[in-house]
Amino acid sequence: MAESRRPIITLLTDFGTVDHFVGCVKGAILEINPDVHLIDATHDVPSHDVLAAAFTLRSYYNYFPAGTVHLVVVDPGVGTRRRPLLVATERYYFVAPDSGLLSVVFENETIHRVIHITEDHFFRKPVSKTFHGRDIFAPVAAWVTRGIDQFKFGPEITDYVSLSTPKVRQVGPKLLQGVVLYVDKFGNLVTNFTEKDIPAERFDKILIAGEEVSILQDAYAEGDPGEFFAIPGSSGFYEIALTRDSAAQALEAARGTEVGALLK
Amino acid sequence: MAESRRPIITLLTDFGTVDHFVGCVKGAILEINPDVHLIDATHDVPSHDVLAAAFTLRSYYNYFPAGTVHLVVVDPGVGTRRRPLLVATERYYFVAPDSGLLSVVFENETIHRVIHITEDHFFRKPVSKTFHGRDIFAPVAAWVTRGIDQFKFGPEITDYVSLSTPKVRQVGPKLLQGVVLYVDKFGNLVTNFTEKDIPAERFDKILIAGEEVSILQDAYAEGDPGEFFAIPGSSGFYEIALTRDSAAQALEAARGTEVGALLK
Amino acid sequence: MAESRRPIITLLTDFGTVDHFVGCVKGAILEINPDVHLIDATHDVPSHDVLAAAFTLRSYYNYFPAGTVHLVVVDPGVGTRRRPLLVATERYYFVAPDSGLLSVVFENETIHRVIHITEDHFFRKPVSKTFHGRDIFAPVAAWVTRGIDQFKFGPEITDYVSLSTPKVRQVGPKLLQGVVLYVDKFGNLVTNFTEKDIPAERFDKILIAGEEVSILQDAYAEGDPGEFFAIPGSSGFYEIALTRDSAAQALEAARGTEVGALLK
Repeated sequence: MAESRRPIITLLTDFGTVDHFVGCVKGAILEINPDVHLIDATHDVPSHDVLAAAFTLRSYYNYFPAGTVHLVVVDPGVGTRRRPLLVATERYYFVAPDSGLLSVVFENETIHRVIHITEDHFFRKPVSKTFHGRDIFAPVAAWVTRGIDQFKFGPEITDYVSLSTPKVRQVGPKLLQGVVLYVDKFGNLVTNFTEKDIPAERFDKILIAGEEVSILQDAYAEGDPGEFFAIPGSSGFYEIALTRDSAAQALEAARGTEVGALLK
Repeated sequence: MAESRRPIITLLTDFGTVDHFVGCVKGAILEINPDVHLIDATHDVPSHDVLAAAFTLRSYYNYFPAGTVHLVVVDPGVGTRRRPLLVATERYYFVAPDSGLLSVVFENETIHRVIHITEDHFFRKPVSKTFHGRDIFAPVAAWVTRGIDQFKFGPEITDYVSLSTPKVRQVGPKLLQGVVLYVDKFGNLVTNFTEKDIPAERFDKILIAGEEVSILQDAYAEGDPGEFFAIPGSSGFYEIALTRDSAAQALEAARGTEVGALLK
Repeated sequence: MAESRRPIITLLTDFGTVDHFVGCVKGAILEINPDVHLIDATHDVPSHDVLAAAFTLRSYYNYFPAGTVHLVVVDPGVGTRRRPLLVATERYYFVAPDSGLLSVVFENETIHRVIHITEDHFFRKPVSKTFHGRDIFAPVAAWVTRGIDQFKFGPEITDYVSLSTPKVRQVGPKLLQGVVLYVDKFGNLVTNFTEKDIPAERFDKILIAGEEVSILQDAYAEGDPGEFFAIPGSSGFYEIALTRDSAAQALEAARGTEVGALLK
């Protein structure tokens, strides 16, 4: 694919879009490198929700061109001892707090190095204790796009936080146990079952919140009104959906709800 | 006007800004053409609401410079037989599902050609059945900005879906019947009466939801608190408004509410 | 710092992100200068809330590189006699209605000149009486980035509207009286007490809504659940916060709520 000529920084935060936070982060980046192309991924991750942020990041980061810097600031621990990280993989850079946000990157990517950001001459001064997004993460992301060597930002570490994604468990010869990872804005329940766990030809039914879902669809619009169905979703996981309605609301299910799968 | 040097793609979707969908679409575009300037028009069209999307698109598309690609993904039929379209007009390109979204473009623009997008070597692989925004529409929009000839994307068609905008009807010598097309975030009720239908000097009153609106204003701030007034709005239609309050809520009116107009 | 090579225009509005308004403003700018890098600060300022807009602007504008044009459209008086302004300071340009929105700029910046925008050949025609954001403010911001001399837009004025920020009052030898300026999305109550008003070593307690807040923290995450604390916030003001919860809701406090401060 084409190499990016202008540096790209994507933004994932829980800052919301009402206040000044997003403006500050963007300004702090452009002040250091006005050529950056800023890409809003989302600023509406639920406040302090590291798991939601991690799921969202995993679902979009690898669609971007090589060289992209992914800036991720969902940071309930701002101002405490949690470390700011700069992670270099084969294709990308990630700048984020060391809170487990990048677990999926650690799991799935070839990690070149993980730097604990300590060199404060790259920070915006004075550094607010409550807004490292503006004063530490944004400036570091911007300096990375100006070609500053990764090792200049601090020491390499190996003891970074990595939360493991909930694993699918085999609980019977034809029975799997999983969990809802995420609920999207359409109310679709994203499970942690992949097509590798449940090949389409072996799909029998999914059990969730007292409901047996035995219909397997290819497209959201194919379902009949009021009928739940399973569908291989675009993030690589099976989803439970309801045609033009919210499966999550109808089933009173949410992230963490247990899900069973019966295979043929 | 100035010719655009960087290609521009505008984005109109119902993806919301909470999930990963917008990030995926932006990444898929930049992976193919990192020079594109991405412009968020809105991602907050009500889910699956093709009519709201069509009204929104009509209200902004022709403010952009010639050569702009308008990417429009409100796509309740994703994964079904509805066709993906590439439409070339005198000034713009449009990439959208064939759901009537582009009706206003077909009505108002000189159409050069309408292409049914079929050539899947321009798609992102594997093509998810549930996220054509990422795997079909975004890549095609990006390839258009790289100068790929329109005919390369598939065959020209003429039987595309075109919904007609609700027409104003003359129901008496001085009486017109219309309808509310849209309600904006301020609660202003946008009717389908234009200044051609009701020249200001012939305005007598508008009838809506049992209310007779006989005040005609030029500016939202001119009305007295609690008084409804009519105003020629910025989209070219008469609106019913209430100073610093929501006319839609106060009148319990919505899209589709019938409206009458008495002329002098 | 680096000089910006591409012109930057930041956008602050109360247009919301559901309708076509933002798309129109962006198109109107790019039609005049397609090279502009458009930066969304926020479009979600509460409708018509000039004070909230002014606080938001003050909190981000000076993080941007020199030469940035800040476009601010929260404009309840659109279409009335309120004047459109172009303000040039040492580092920035501001384009906004003359409603007091720019008070903080007038207070804090070296003002080079304040122009009353009158020269309508820079406007988009026809000029809607209800959408000056699209037809006046956006085009003027765009022409500024194309190097049009400020004086070409209209006469210089000195009688622009400037609202004074609520001042902290000394009401006793060790007692200050202030006010809540803003509530952010996390429910943090931003007061108008600065660290100059209350040096950390003299902090005794803050009095708000019947509560005595005597804990002073450095980081939001340091507080105990259910305990209110004061914290020097990132905008330069003391905030009243509640760990991972909304202090505003818990205290039923809002903008304008009176706040007292006891010093040691």
